[in-house]
Amino acid sequence: MDITVLQKKISVFAQERDWESFHTVRNLIFALVGEVGELAESVQWLGEIDIEYLAQNPDTLKAISGEVADVFIYLVRLADIAKIDLEKVVEEKIVSNALRYTVEKSKGNAEKQ
Amino acid sequence: MDITVLQKKISVFAQERDWESFHTVRNLIFALVGEVGELAESVQWLGEIDIEYLAQNPDTLKAISGEVADVFIYLVRLADIAKIDLEKVVEEKIVSNALRYTVEKSKGNAEKQ
Amino acid sequence: MDITVLQKKISVFAQERDWESFHTVRNLIFALVGEVGELAESVQWLGEIDIEYLAQNPDTLKAISGEVADVFIYLVRLADIAKIDLEKVVEEKIVSNALRYTVEKSKGNAEKQ
Amino acid sequence: MDITVLQKKISVFAQERDWESFHTVRNLIFALVGEVGELAESVQWLGEIDIEYLAQNPDTLKAISGEVADVFIYLVRLADIAKIDLEKVVEEKIVSNALRYTVEKSKGNAEKQ
Repeated sequence: MDITVLQKKISVFAQERDWESFHTVRNLIFALVGEVGELAESVQWLGEIDIEYLAQNPDTLKAISGEVADVFIYLVRLADIAKIDLEKVVEEKIVSNALRYTVEKSKGNAEKQ
Repeated sequence: MDITVLQKKISVFAQERDWESFHTVRNLIFALVGEVGELAESVQWLGEIDIEYLAQNPDTLKAISGEVADVFIYLVRLADIAKIDLEKVVEEKIVSNALRYTVEKSKGNAEKQ
Repeated sequence: MDITVLQKKISVFAQERDWESFHTVRNLIFALVGEVGELAESVQWLGEIDIEYLAQNPDTLKAISGEVADVFIYLVRLADIAKIDLEKVVEEKIVSNALRYTVEKSKGNAEKQ
Repeated sequence: MDITVLQKKISVFAQERDWESFHTVRNLIFALVGEVGELAESVQWLGEIDIEYLAQNPDTLKAISGEVADVFIYLVRLADIAKIDLEKVVEEKIVSNALRYTVEKSKGNAEKQ
């Protein structure tokens, strides 16, 4: 996926609807929180589920997928608005995580995650 | 950014640390909620901020960027674990949003968003 | 408000609907996250608002109030299910906050909050 | 618990530290989201847990309790700042839930919740 192309699409979408003034940093973070809340709702009463469960419950998988897409779109839009180079910060985070959670100390240890 | 390559990297990272058993659908959604919470904390006492503010407050921008990266990584990992084709569901969502929020009815109207 | 009476009411409500098996610790935390997401949505496109704004926009105030109630109900239910003495932990937290954020070091300093 | 007394305590606490200007409606909602994120983190890698688990893992129970207290404090503060009568809106919500989720249609049905 070309994140820049996606950001351009979302930007045009917002521009066509005169929504640009709504897309401030804090407004977008609230919108992201709202979508993450809907993602949580999509699994809230299910107890632990595995990949088998999702294969047998396409409606649940579809609901989760739709919310994951919503979260992704607002996250990518937020990065665009805040002028965050998403690819760069993700790469940096992976490097810093590797240093912070060395294999030696983190192996099998969820708490170090 | 090649999402598949990123997912592979995160997968290897988890595998090397024996973290795979922790990465269930609901555990990952909780982890995502946790990171979104940290993103919220990074702007919680600031009141409304604009792009100028971020340019003048590099520490705030850096904090937001780090949390955006964390949210992104867990979101991409969740999609991988749940076998969600992220690119496909995002494309579908943009199409369905265009039909749901037509320019005609949504122009300048935040409530329709 | 007598929290114990409220918890009893919610418990009876759940019992009458055979919802008790759904009310596990993690399910209730997800439900809480969902309601907090709706609270976020109720203010997401508004930019900074003050008490004047709410007085002049009763629909927004009503939406916020409804979501605050939902969050409160799930929080109180979670405490009940997890056998947390809500009054006690809140009192303890206020004491520990007073020690952690002394007036001396925290005066006017949002970062210490 | 007398919510009004608690709100007064939190108000004095904020006043003594000159924190009142930080406690706007949207800032407090972000702070609430942050604490809910920490609550999610306290159970993120645990898979499904029951009351037995909490009895045997006092550290987890203590972590959850502390976060529940934090969420409660910000929620009660938000209600105070927004001039929401918490007791009244909670009572109203319980009544409206009883009408919305009748025993007849909701019995054993999580989706109606």
